[in-house]
Amino acid sequence: MLFFTQCFGAVLDLIHLRFQHYKAKRVFSAAGQLVCVVNPTHSLKYAATRCAAAQASTEQGILPPCHHHGEAVHDPQLVPCTCPLFSCPWEGHLEVVVSHLRQTHRINILQGAEIVFLATDMHLPAPTDWIIMHSCLGHQFLLVLRKQEKYEGHPQFFATMMLIGTPTQANNFTYRLELNRNQRRLKWEATPRSILECVDSVISDGDCLVLNTSLAQLFSDNGSLAIGIAITTSKVHSSEAEM
Amino acid sequence: MLFFTQCFGAVLDLIHLRFQHYKAKRVFSAAGQLVCVVNPTHSLKYAATRCAAAQASTEQGILPPCHHHGEAVHDPQLVPCTCPLFSCPWEGHLEVVVSHLRQTHRINILQGAEIVFLATDMHLPAPTDWIIMHSCLGHQFLLVLRKQEKYEGHPQFFATMMLIGTPTQANNFTYRLELNRNQRRLKWEATPRSILECVDSVISDGDCLVLNTSLAQLFSDNGSLAIGIAITTSKVHSSEAEM
Repeated sequence: MLFFTQCFGAVLDLIHLRFQHYKAKRVFSAAGQLVCVVNPTHSLKYAATRCAAAQASTEQGILPPCHHHGEAVHDPQLVPCTCPLFSCPWEGHLEVVVSHLRQTHRINILQGAEIVFLATDMHLPAPTDWIIMHSCLGHQFLLVLRKQEKYEGHPQFFATMMLIGTPTQANNFTYRLELNRNQRRLKWEATPRSILECVDSVISDGDCLVLNTSLAQLFSDNGSLAIGIAITTSKVHSSEAEM
Repeated sequence: MLFFTQCFGAVLDLIHLRFQHYKAKRVFSAAGQLVCVVNPTHSLKYAATRCAAAQASTEQGILPPCHHHGEAVHDPQLVPCTCPLFSCPWEGHLEVVVSHLRQTHRINILQGAEIVFLATDMHLPAPTDWIIMHSCLGHQFLLVLRKQEKYEGHPQFFATMMLIGTPTQANNFTYRLELNRNQRRLKWEATPRSILECVDSVISDGDCLVLNTSLAQLFSDNGSLAIGIAITTSKVHSSEAEM
């Protein structure tokens, strides 16, 4: 009997250690899928400045920098590009935006066609961004989850995927975001937008996965929201793009 | 050459006639799925009265009639029930609510596990309801699509499915709503709510499929929104209900 009690104790210890390990590692694999824990990005004060600046420039009739698509340049890698985190005044070519995001903003890059994005601290006040880069099918993608008050006093969550490439390249892919918890499942499938388009306008148009606070709570576990992400090539779109 | 021109003209005529036939028939089958054209329900003035009445009764500390669940009654068919269209003062037993909905509110009832709900005139101002009954797996379900201004000046669309039965019976099912158009797909899966619960509270909690106006427009075709509906039995839930 004592032997069984000790065995049980040892198993409990192992479970506890395993849990600690999970908490410490912050990036782990569950049921064969890569789970990436994403903390909010620390650019709130910049974001506020940027919003004010964007509003001021619109009022003065100046277009925000994200409005130059520049598809006339033949090599996609040399298309002029601004940092998608509009908080940031960086400008450069499309080919160096990934290294800029990694080095300056310390955004993680994950490999694999299917990953789980686990956004922590969902209770933080709006505006807050959760961002990761996702590398698959020979391209880099940027997943943006934003908590924003589109209607004052009513924060909502907006999730979208951008391709670090041109709109023509983006048409070759389909992305899927999936939430699954509490006997509810929500799936959103769409063509990613190009990073040369404005994340802000995609979100303000609501052409993305939109969650109100109560639904986000139903899908959350202990303040964290898990979003399953899958990217595939879309045959139909690629043939359309060739026409 | 003249022969080909005439042939082309005849084909165009046929296409036009086919389109007219579609418009006239209003309930047709596409790709083996039953498509049901659903016009807005004509109960807006009642709805306004009901909202005012519900608000008044809440202010006076009186619970609205939909709050009595009455699961203590042993025969589910004899559970006291109010009309789910709260515009209506009708009260009766669960077993007669279907005939009340058909006879008094002229709500269509459709057979089949998978149907397409085609809501017309999406441009109509909020509040507007589109409602059908759906009979499958030995039960009747009520699909409610509502256009409502949760935030003033920003109408949204809310879609949910209610079981014409008790909450315990509702736990045995899963419903899926699917929108698919313009290279976007949105799927919502959940357990239906019982008709003994308040449709209003499900919608105000946002625990349902929620669409903003711009997304509803992307999924609409010519002012009509097609929602694919599927109902299945949920094995896990039924075993939980038995416990």
